[in-house]
Amino acid sequence: MDALNAFFSTPAIRAIWTDQAVIAAMIRFEAELAAAQRDCGVIPADAADAIIDTCSSFAVDAGKLAADARVAGTLAIPLVKMLKAAVGKRSEGAAAYVHYGSTSQDLADTAMVTLARQSLDLLRTDLVRLGDALAAQVEAHRRTPLLGRTLIQPAAPVTFGWKVAGWLDAAGRSSAALKRAGDEACTLQFGGANGTLATHYGEGQRVARALADRLGLRVPAISWQGGRDRLARLGSELAILCGALGKIGRDISLLMQAEVAEAFEPTGEGRGGSSAMPHKRNPVSSMYLMDAAYRAPALASILAGELASEHERGLGTWPNSLPVLADLFSLAASSIAAAVDIAEGVRVDAQAMQANIDRLYGVVYSEGISLRLSALLGPAQAQRIVGQVCEQAISQRTPVAELLKQIPEVTAVLGTEDIDILAGPQPQIAACQPMCSAVLYQWQEQKTLIQED
Amino acid sequence: MDALNAFFSTPAIRAIWTDQAVIAAMIRFEAELAAAQRDCGVIPADAADAIIDTCSSFAVDAGKLAADARVAGTLAIPLVKMLKAAVGKRSEGAAAYVHYGSTSQDLADTAMVTLARQSLDLLRTDLVRLGDALAAQVEAHRRTPLLGRTLIQPAAPVTFGWKVAGWLDAAGRSSAALKRAGDEACTLQFGGANGTLATHYGEGQRVARALADRLGLRVPAISWQGGRDRLARLGSELAILCGALGKIGRDISLLMQAEVAEAFEPTGEGRGGSSAMPHKRNPVSSMYLMDAAYRAPALASILAGELASEHERGLGTWPNSLPVLADLFSLAASSIAAAVDIAEGVRVDAQAMQANIDRLYGVVYSEGISLRLSALLGPAQAQRIVGQVCEQAISQRTPVAELLKQIPEVTAVLGTEDIDILAGPQPQIAACQPMCSAVLYQWQEQKTLIQED
Amino acid sequence: MDALNAFFSTPAIRAIWTDQAVIAAMIRFEAELAAAQRDCGVIPADAADAIIDTCSSFAVDAGKLAADARVAGTLAIPLVKMLKAAVGKRSEGAAAYVHYGSTSQDLADTAMVTLARQSLDLLRTDLVRLGDALAAQVEAHRRTPLLGRTLIQPAAPVTFGWKVAGWLDAAGRSSAALKRAGDEACTLQFGGANGTLATHYGEGQRVARALADRLGLRVPAISWQGGRDRLARLGSELAILCGALGKIGRDISLLMQAEVAEAFEPTGEGRGGSSAMPHKRNPVSSMYLMDAAYRAPALASILAGELASEHERGLGTWPNSLPVLADLFSLAASSIAAAVDIAEGVRVDAQAMQANIDRLYGVVYSEGISLRLSALLGPAQAQRIVGQVCEQAISQRTPVAELLKQIPEVTAVLGTEDIDILAGPQPQIAACQPMCSAVLYQWQEQKTLIQED
Amino acid sequence: MDALNAFFSTPAIRAIWTDQAVIAAMIRFEAELAAAQRDCGVIPADAADAIIDTCSSFAVDAGKLAADARVAGTLAIPLVKMLKAAVGKRSEGAAAYVHYGSTSQDLADTAMVTLARQSLDLLRTDLVRLGDALAAQVEAHRRTPLLGRTLIQPAAPVTFGWKVAGWLDAAGRSSAALKRAGDEACTLQFGGANGTLATHYGEGQRVARALADRLGLRVPAISWQGGRDRLARLGSELAILCGALGKIGRDISLLMQAEVAEAFEPTGEGRGGSSAMPHKRNPVSSMYLMDAAYRAPALASILAGELASEHERGLGTWPNSLPVLADLFSLAASSIAAAVDIAEGVRVDAQAMQANIDRLYGVVYSEGISLRLSALLGPAQAQRIVGQVCEQAISQRTPVAELLKQIPEVTAVLGTEDIDILAGPQPQIAACQPMCSAVLYQWQEQKTLIQED
Repeated sequence: MDALNAFFSTPAIRAIWTDQAVIAAMIRFEAELAAAQRDCGVIPADAADAIIDTCSSFAVDAGKLAADARVAGTLAIPLVKMLKAAVGKRSEGAAAYVHYGSTSQDLADTAMVTLARQSLDLLRTDLVRLGDALAAQVEAHRRTPLLGRTLIQPAAPVTFGWKVAGWLDAAGRSSAALKRAGDEACTLQFGGANGTLATHYGEGQRVARALADRLGLRVPAISWQGGRDRLARLGSELAILCGALGKIGRDISLLMQAEVAEAFEPTGEGRGGSSAMPHKRNPVSSMYLMDAAYRAPALASILAGELASEHERGLGTWPNSLPVLADLFSLAASSIAAAVDIAEGVRVDAQAMQANIDRLYGVVYSEGISLRLSALLGPAQAQRIVGQVCEQAISQRTPVAELLKQIPEVTAVLGTEDIDILAGPQPQIAACQPMCSAVLYQWQEQKTLIQED
Repeated sequence: MDALNAFFSTPAIRAIWTDQAVIAAMIRFEAELAAAQRDCGVIPADAADAIIDTCSSFAVDAGKLAADARVAGTLAIPLVKMLKAAVGKRSEGAAAYVHYGSTSQDLADTAMVTLARQSLDLLRTDLVRLGDALAAQVEAHRRTPLLGRTLIQPAAPVTFGWKVAGWLDAAGRSSAALKRAGDEACTLQFGGANGTLATHYGEGQRVARALADRLGLRVPAISWQGGRDRLARLGSELAILCGALGKIGRDISLLMQAEVAEAFEPTGEGRGGSSAMPHKRNPVSSMYLMDAAYRAPALASILAGELASEHERGLGTWPNSLPVLADLFSLAASSIAAAVDIAEGVRVDAQAMQANIDRLYGVVYSEGISLRLSALLGPAQAQRIVGQVCEQAISQRTPVAELLKQIPEVTAVLGTEDIDILAGPQPQIAACQPMCSAVLYQWQEQKTLIQED
Repeated sequence: MDALNAFFSTPAIRAIWTDQAVIAAMIRFEAELAAAQRDCGVIPADAADAIIDTCSSFAVDAGKLAADARVAGTLAIPLVKMLKAAVGKRSEGAAAYVHYGSTSQDLADTAMVTLARQSLDLLRTDLVRLGDALAAQVEAHRRTPLLGRTLIQPAAPVTFGWKVAGWLDAAGRSSAALKRAGDEACTLQFGGANGTLATHYGEGQRVARALADRLGLRVPAISWQGGRDRLARLGSELAILCGALGKIGRDISLLMQAEVAEAFEPTGEGRGGSSAMPHKRNPVSSMYLMDAAYRAPALASILAGELASEHERGLGTWPNSLPVLADLFSLAASSIAAAVDIAEGVRVDAQAMQANIDRLYGVVYSEGISLRLSALLGPAQAQRIVGQVCEQAISQRTPVAELLKQIPEVTAVLGTEDIDILAGPQPQIAACQPMCSAVLYQWQEQKTLIQED
Repeated sequence: MDALNAFFSTPAIRAIWTDQAVIAAMIRFEAELAAAQRDCGVIPADAADAIIDTCSSFAVDAGKLAADARVAGTLAIPLVKMLKAAVGKRSEGAAAYVHYGSTSQDLADTAMVTLARQSLDLLRTDLVRLGDALAAQVEAHRRTPLLGRTLIQPAAPVTFGWKVAGWLDAAGRSSAALKRAGDEACTLQFGGANGTLATHYGEGQRVARALADRLGLRVPAISWQGGRDRLARLGSELAILCGALGKIGRDISLLMQAEVAEAFEPTGEGRGGSSAMPHKRNPVSSMYLMDAAYRAPALASILAGELASEHERGLGTWPNSLPVLADLFSLAASSIAAAVDIAEGVRVDAQAMQANIDRLYGVVYSEGISLRLSALLGPAQAQRIVGQVCEQAISQRTPVAELLKQIPEVTAVLGTEDIDILAGPQPQIAACQPMCSAVLYQWQEQKTLIQED
């Protein structure tokens, strides 16, 4: 199954992790290695050029490669063998310098992080777009009241912009953390047979730097073939991002319930229908967001669970980094695309939001009323009064404010205007503003960090 | 990435879960549904025949389908739309009966379990082969001594056959449990829009039975679209099987260390080489076994973690069953193949096994010696004597038995022959026999169960 | 933290897994081992009696034990040492027969499964209570209509009893599967130093059977110290049960939303309040159900992830079975208790359920209408008509049935009564009945299985 | 079970997460909240003082609290109720200001991060100690050759110092990443009923800052009750650290095998014995390292899997952060202690390391030989020669260098000295030096970062 997985992904990220792209990244490694070794005087220039030239038009059948790899225990061995044969046809002597002083894992791991590098560059553009879209919603709706809901039960109102600010807070921080972890993970793996670069006889570090430069990767202090915490960290950040964005899907899908009907995913031709029910408009972007939130943490736990590997190259712990990471990037891209879809196109029904608040007759303001009355009348009396008015408000369909104004103990200590403020949305709306501003400010800083090269 | 994943899998299992095979299973569902509905008088016979006939030569572009599915939120909607169009070309009236009274999830889930059914049938053949091969090794080596090792430190000897019996015990039980969970999971999902089959107006149960019969699936008491514990159980059993087989890889890879060198994976052309080190013979089957053992439990936890889904059809919790289950089957097939490879071809060096025992000069028999001396001389004196002879045995390179024979307190209570038995392998070898026999007997029962239809 | 974890658990299950209960189970192992060995003539009767007698009043400081265990690397070594000292005070000779021919892991694992046995016996009583309570709700509400909801959007109505039947289906099957996996897991581990029982010199199997009988455990074919798939299976079934019950919490919490208000957790003094909002009634049982559904699958994956352990006793893979299993039992008990609370006390507002259906003016019947009209008028015309009436129904607040009766193309092929049936709940209610009956029947079978000894 | 879990932990970390410590942290929150509100003029000074004073001697029964919490659905409600009653006894008016404008989750989450703060401060001391000890081993053994081992098979030699440098690289980076994630996570949660601090009427931000200062926590841009990525990140870093340190345990336990016998855990009274085998010295620190490496990733996945929570306060997603985080800290502390034990006390047998190299007669130098001969003689001839000498070296027990010197094709292009270098350890030892130095330098930078306040 390959094409069908596109259903949970995006075309752009999938293009980075195709069979052919992985093979191309491995061939690129061999070509750049030859170039770096040539430039450092480690291998003859003509051999390097023959290798580079062969690589530029070298094609490999993925199915054949995988079948040979199953026997060999690594994708690299059959690939290098094929490449050596191709180079040998051009120049027998040059074949000796293919993959010179390198090993299978160098090839596999470095090819993988070059694809991770491309993936991260792709995602961060979308993450900036997402953050900007969320920021715009924060601005647009920072004073649009909607019910707060805790444990999925009504709480005092917040504003829709404040709610989105919560999404942006987590999304922005997770995007910045992904940038940091991603940059760290995009580090050259180059160590030769045992990781020491011994067959470079003192030239290992120079070649490594040259090779890393060519591939746009960082140079490590020491080979990381057996020390893969950076990959585990990258995987964890991809999972945390999927989780943080998942919340957008969870919230929108709940707001989009027929009985709530406060905010909606954008609609479109062919979107979110049902094969059985013509009237349905399903929250498909939310579905993709939830899908990734369910799957990514377990995938990330695989990478973290493989760190205690054996000696200089673990058994069964490193070749699977490639497919696991590909899946994580795929899910993250799916998530980001779905989140952008919502962030840019969410349809907000402010009237419905207000109506759902009004239907509760002010009982959701009980926190503030209770606190004030406690201070004025003592906790016992306050609790009694608040309990009574909340019950009456619902049963008599009368706003709490009106009920309070009929209670002499209350009017003895509070004026009408005070009651209206206490039992109304204004303090809530006001309270949302500094937090919205702080998140918007924070996003600008995060954005700068994410866009940094 | 698709072909490259074959590296961690087998061609046979992968052939079951290709894009085209998934699509074919979905088309088959529609054809068999029409046939079942025709046979139950729910849809007109000519409409059914037009649908069945169209399905028999219906082709779908997987890439196009996935792209449309991304918009629609399900693979089923675009597929049904394409199929309706194709049927409509043949007979406009018949198109109305395509996917009649069914819904996307019926199609997706039932197609998935028909592929699971094929996968399970494929795997159980190999599981029987594996069990038989392990059983043969138990027989062949039930009296071949090798060191027991606990916490990776030497313990009293066991026999290699007994060790393999431990593998067979877990593999056989896990195979039987997979058979049971697999059969349960291969249950028709058919419920229409909300799961009740209401638009079948009383004919739902009859159609369901007919459809299940045609597809070789069980009929559930109630639609399982929102009650997916059977899938979670199947996923867990696949993961447990990968773990149980993983132990074979772990043990062989440790026995195959240069310093231990007691048992080896089979060798072969191109197998387990190193791109850097010509002399290397890597334990590649063990590597595949470990790979699956690391990955499968996390994948299974995804399915178990999606059970608390919303109402009659969860959000983001069911479409990913297909790729997750495909991955689990893929890893299980990889594991079984690698385990068969070892079980049938393991090279055992009985001399090396004996030599590694001998190099420890009998200190590994300390348990038995200590128990007997404790009974005869009291724990304090026994502990002192055993501690002393163990130390001397290693430092003086002298067998424990000889040392014991020089200690008057010991010879006062134990004869020479007693000492030789206590400080020798015979009781260990003898002790392995009833357990080997019990496991071999148990395997015959498990095998019968696994082969049952 | 210990007492505070009770928040996520039940007193009864926690009583089984206290420090003192674990220690008592270990002491019981030693006492029953001595008795079994005495009865099989393996150790002197007076030594056995001294051990049994000492065990009957033997007390251990858990803190001291844990501290010593940290150094020793196992709880068993310091415990056995303390016990030997205590027995030695009574009879120096008897001390030699404490823990005779056994090893740390025998003690730890067997003590663990005796506690698992108690836990399973406790839970199954509650699982039967749960199933019966759910079955009663199925009966009581098998004809109470409520909206079906797919992807959290309205679908055709089901009945509340049918919805509960879905819960019972998964809960009943998962309870039965737990019974089976639990019984399998409650198997004696007894193998001595390397697992072969060699120091029992041919009496191992007899002692094992006698010991298992005394402890109420099964006898294995071979020591399972390194083959722990049964534990992994038990862990997975506990997790799947938590997931299956989690769905009850998910659904109730969604039904209990203020805007939906169709079904409610039972209320009670001090239950589900908010420290800030006096009016709140939080769905606390649902919260416990979700908590366990989030946590248990990851915990189960630990046990499945440790199967590929080294040789005759893995490193770091078995001592943690005890705390992980204790956590899983704790969460399962928490879940079952919360599910019983809901199953027995759920407050159903049938009027609200009907009102939420009515508010959608029959658009949720579009599946059936569409199918019938497609058959009568062809798909194209049917789609047009259904799309139009669904839109009008909502915008004009007019039932779909009434709108259909005004469309000549429709009335040309369908009578008024037909339209009322198509656009009404009766087919849905009827369709729920056979599934409800099948699940109730199935529960009786599952109940018998669960109650079997 | 509480004390017994100490077996997998350390006394110091456990002291931070006891029932009483958690309760004390919650009481501290209430006291500091009152103080902050007093200082900001939000509540009367005498009320605040009464609260603070009551808190200073307030005791709560943990068992009672947990039982009440099970009913209430939160630890906070019964605690606040008890505290209000206690304050009320002192001053009825003051009771109204207990927990003023705050909510359960503020209390629970902030108490949790104050304990996380303490835990992180505790761990980083040990992490510095660990890094320094590893650095000292790097220095001491940077020229001590031992076999490299890839896929657990012999590769060209490395040095033991280089191997330790690999451990330090991952440990240092993971320590620094934990520091960063930990500091971020130690952020005040304070939002009142719905997270907006509305009942502080404009004073919320000031009170939040004052409260955060008092508790040594950061101030967030917005309440993070529903945006818990920081906790997920902290959990992931704890898991990654456990994995990175787990590698130390894996490697040492393999080196400590009787057949390898190159490096050993420190020994000590009562340490690593066997209850059955008097001669055993088990790798108990390695066992703790592996235990944590197996468990922590799954625990971390719970936190990442709960991010997609509902609205302003999720259902079942946040109260369990406390026990999950407590477990993760407990495992991390166990790991660090075990790693320090090995790093400071590892016993290195350099002679055995050399002997294990020598036993392979130089075949492990095949990479370098093969590369040089390929360059000189072409790949085909080189491969033939290297294959032949590797085989002969083992079968004839003759060093590869000697064999090469007898092959005319080789001596025609390589001098004796060249052969000795190619087929000897010197290039390997030399190659290790720059990587060792780079890691040591990097550690100094990481250490500075970790120690920063």
